[in-house]
Amino acid sequence: MSFGEIFLSEFLGTGMLLLLGCGVVATAILDRSKGLGGGWLLINFGWGLGVFAGVYVAFESGAHINPAVTLGFAVEGRTAWSDVPAYLLGELAGAIVGATLCWLAFKQHFDAEEDPAKKLAVFSTGPQIRNPLWNTTTEVIATFVLLFVIFSFANSPAELGPLPVALLVLGIGASLGGPTGYAINPARDLGPRIAHAFLPIRGKGSSDWGYSWVPVAGPIIGGILGGLLARAVY
Amino acid sequence: MSFGEIFLSEFLGTGMLLLLGCGVVATAILDRSKGLGGGWLLINFGWGLGVFAGVYVAFESGAHINPAVTLGFAVEGRTAWSDVPAYLLGELAGAIVGATLCWLAFKQHFDAEEDPAKKLAVFSTGPQIRNPLWNTTTEVIATFVLLFVIFSFANSPAELGPLPVALLVLGIGASLGGPTGYAINPARDLGPRIAHAFLPIRGKGSSDWGYSWVPVAGPIIGGILGGLLARAVY
Amino acid sequence: MSFGEIFLSEFLGTGMLLLLGCGVVATAILDRSKGLGGGWLLINFGWGLGVFAGVYVAFESGAHINPAVTLGFAVEGRTAWSDVPAYLLGELAGAIVGATLCWLAFKQHFDAEEDPAKKLAVFSTGPQIRNPLWNTTTEVIATFVLLFVIFSFANSPAELGPLPVALLVLGIGASLGGPTGYAINPARDLGPRIAHAFLPIRGKGSSDWGYSWVPVAGPIIGGILGGLLARAVY
Amino acid sequence: MSFGEIFLSEFLGTGMLLLLGCGVVATAILDRSKGLGGGWLLINFGWGLGVFAGVYVAFESGAHINPAVTLGFAVEGRTAWSDVPAYLLGELAGAIVGATLCWLAFKQHFDAEEDPAKKLAVFSTGPQIRNPLWNTTTEVIATFVLLFVIFSFANSPAELGPLPVALLVLGIGASLGGPTGYAINPARDLGPRIAHAFLPIRGKGSSDWGYSWVPVAGPIIGGILGGLLARAVY
Repeated sequence: MSFGEIFLSEFLGTGMLLLLGCGVVATAILDRSKGLGGGWLLINFGWGLGVFAGVYVAFESGAHINPAVTLGFAVEGRTAWSDVPAYLLGELAGAIVGATLCWLAFKQHFDAEEDPAKKLAVFSTGPQIRNPLWNTTTEVIATFVLLFVIFSFANSPAELGPLPVALLVLGIGASLGGPTGYAINPARDLGPRIAHAFLPIRGKGSSDWGYSWVPVAGPIIGGILGGLLARAVY
Repeated sequence: MSFGEIFLSEFLGTGMLLLLGCGVVATAILDRSKGLGGGWLLINFGWGLGVFAGVYVAFESGAHINPAVTLGFAVEGRTAWSDVPAYLLGELAGAIVGATLCWLAFKQHFDAEEDPAKKLAVFSTGPQIRNPLWNTTTEVIATFVLLFVIFSFANSPAELGPLPVALLVLGIGASLGGPTGYAINPARDLGPRIAHAFLPIRGKGSSDWGYSWVPVAGPIIGGILGGLLARAVY
Repeated sequence: MSFGEIFLSEFLGTGMLLLLGCGVVATAILDRSKGLGGGWLLINFGWGLGVFAGVYVAFESGAHINPAVTLGFAVEGRTAWSDVPAYLLGELAGAIVGATLCWLAFKQHFDAEEDPAKKLAVFSTGPQIRNPLWNTTTEVIATFVLLFVIFSFANSPAELGPLPVALLVLGIGASLGGPTGYAINPARDLGPRIAHAFLPIRGKGSSDWGYSWVPVAGPIIGGILGGLLARAVY
Repeated sequence: MSFGEIFLSEFLGTGMLLLLGCGVVATAILDRSKGLGGGWLLINFGWGLGVFAGVYVAFESGAHINPAVTLGFAVEGRTAWSDVPAYLLGELAGAIVGATLCWLAFKQHFDAEEDPAKKLAVFSTGPQIRNPLWNTTTEVIATFVLLFVIFSFANSPAELGPLPVALLVLGIGASLGGPTGYAINPARDLGPRIAHAFLPIRGKGSSDWGYSWVPVAGPIIGGILGGLLARAVY
């Protein structure tokens, strides 16, 4: 595929992921939402099915929709390094636009919500107990799981399309999301944070750039580790 | 297929969707239901599996069971414009009958419930923060997602039958349903509203016709946008 | 298949269904269970996955595991009337044994629970608002949905095995279970009620035989209606 | 496959299972987790999807990831007795490492949590009402279901890959997990208990070795019974 085809496919797929993923957080936590207090499993389903939709949309380019997947695939050899820039740019641009569409869909609830921390939480992840080393460790482990299991999908013949990766992300969120909110995807965190910084969100607070490198570095390290182990054992 | 075959298939499928979809709201909110307080994810499952059942029932006519799908498919070219009236009439008639069956299944709980707003909420959607422009925006975005992702299903070979669209609707509800209760289907909202207006429901209040155009116009606009973008990029 | 083969297959499958189905109610409501207060969606999942397991176990005999399915299939013509007795006996015997195994698995929680109504609720269904006519109506509608949608499965080619019927039962429970607790299966209700009557359950109360005909008659009527409509339209 | 290949495959798969399985308990119960109070269905999903991921990872060795499965398969004849040691060692070693990784991912939450019982609960199971006979009975019944239904999968042709066993474990947990927390897998309980005993967990309490034989003996008995019945009836 050409640069433009990869970019467009990943842009659309990652945009879909972020629209639905940020949306479920908005549904679960913003003031007066019908889903207010819906709980952790609801959030896990929203992100899992956001992956489901995003993978369908970006299927023709392999549906990375995540720079950690792109880099893990490049390290393992499945994706050419020359294609990596198109993937990364499409993913980041899509994430910014998807988060922006989520803001528009929930515009009145952002306006009604009084807590700026909840507004940021719709866009980007934040740790429950702030500590760069341990927060990064959590993201490394969770993203390692994502990549290593994705590589194992090829072992098992089945006709499930994008369902396994959606269920995997649902499971990672349910199981390993407690400490940091499971970015496991640099674009998923950085793109919305950029949107949060630039959009005219009423009563918004800090975009918390001090934490922003953790959900970028952790997933990249974890994704590469997953690719390396997969290359060694499969 | 003939006019009558399309009408019957869509009538049965949309009736099934509304019986199960209105039913899960009744289960979650009506007085003395065993599922009272079941929460947002329960409601999302009920509607998603209502789509699952409805798509099986209406499979032979392509299982639109939603005027926004019919119009999005017509714009994209998959459905002939000459077949559109049979689809729309079957969908609307099915929605009225499905909602009526739901009322019969929960007859005693409608009678026991004191809040007329909850009775209407079983039938039709309503916004959390009433504002025609923003409520329509939310419905446009959510229905755009529905149609655009449905068009992307063809990209990915898998043997999942009606499961993907059921999971997609579950995900859209979880993620984008917070502000308006996700009509994303004009028949889903208008048909039950007509039923609510005519049925002898004990202690019912207004059918809220002032809002009724939003969950019709928003999904139609969103469905057509989804069809146009799919035609452009796939 | 011979009488004995059908009986054994349906006995094992219905036993599995009832062990898991009664089990999820015990998990959700009995004193000191780890799942106490788990909610309606948990119960829906338990019964849906009980069907999933039971259908796998009874696959060779067509996995009715429900007299309403057997009679609906006989009316539609898929099952020979001469095989019906083997199905019904296997289903009823399996339901009695499955509920008994559930009692053993939760023996200490039955002993610890003080409310006899909760003990019966693990075994058999009961209405929230007692009224034979309307309770029967609810069971007729819910079981009609079960049979009519099962017949529609043949319309859609997919490789999902027992998954669709499991999801269908999950959805019927979520959507139509609020008023009566969704027997939708005469053996599911009558078998455990017999077990409840005869087992030496500490501190048990009435087996509520006055209600027992509703979850038998309603599902039979609904199942036959589903079979008749399917024969007419598919 | 060679001893080393079986060991490595089962080590990786069981490690994945325990990382995700222990993780969901940590997410649901440890102090300040984002998923605190997420409930029983969340825990069931985490373990079910842990099985899903673990089975993909260990697919080449048949994905036992559970000594009860290994022994049930050996009794039934599907697995050679000479391969059993490689399976058991891989499963136990993987469980220890997986639980250790979970501890690292939740390190700060273990440190913040004040209740030593919750720390142990992330690692190993414990009964709600302590009684060796009845606790063992519950584990025997639940593991019998696991093995007997796994053997029945071969009856039904479908292209679902590891999905059925994941859903089965989700269902067993939802339905039969209330009394003992459903070990149904000796390695799942013993491996993390060993890790709990040796890891320098801040403020940890007893590893409760007095109970440790129940979730080993119960699942082994149940697994063998499942294998024997499957050999008799399928």
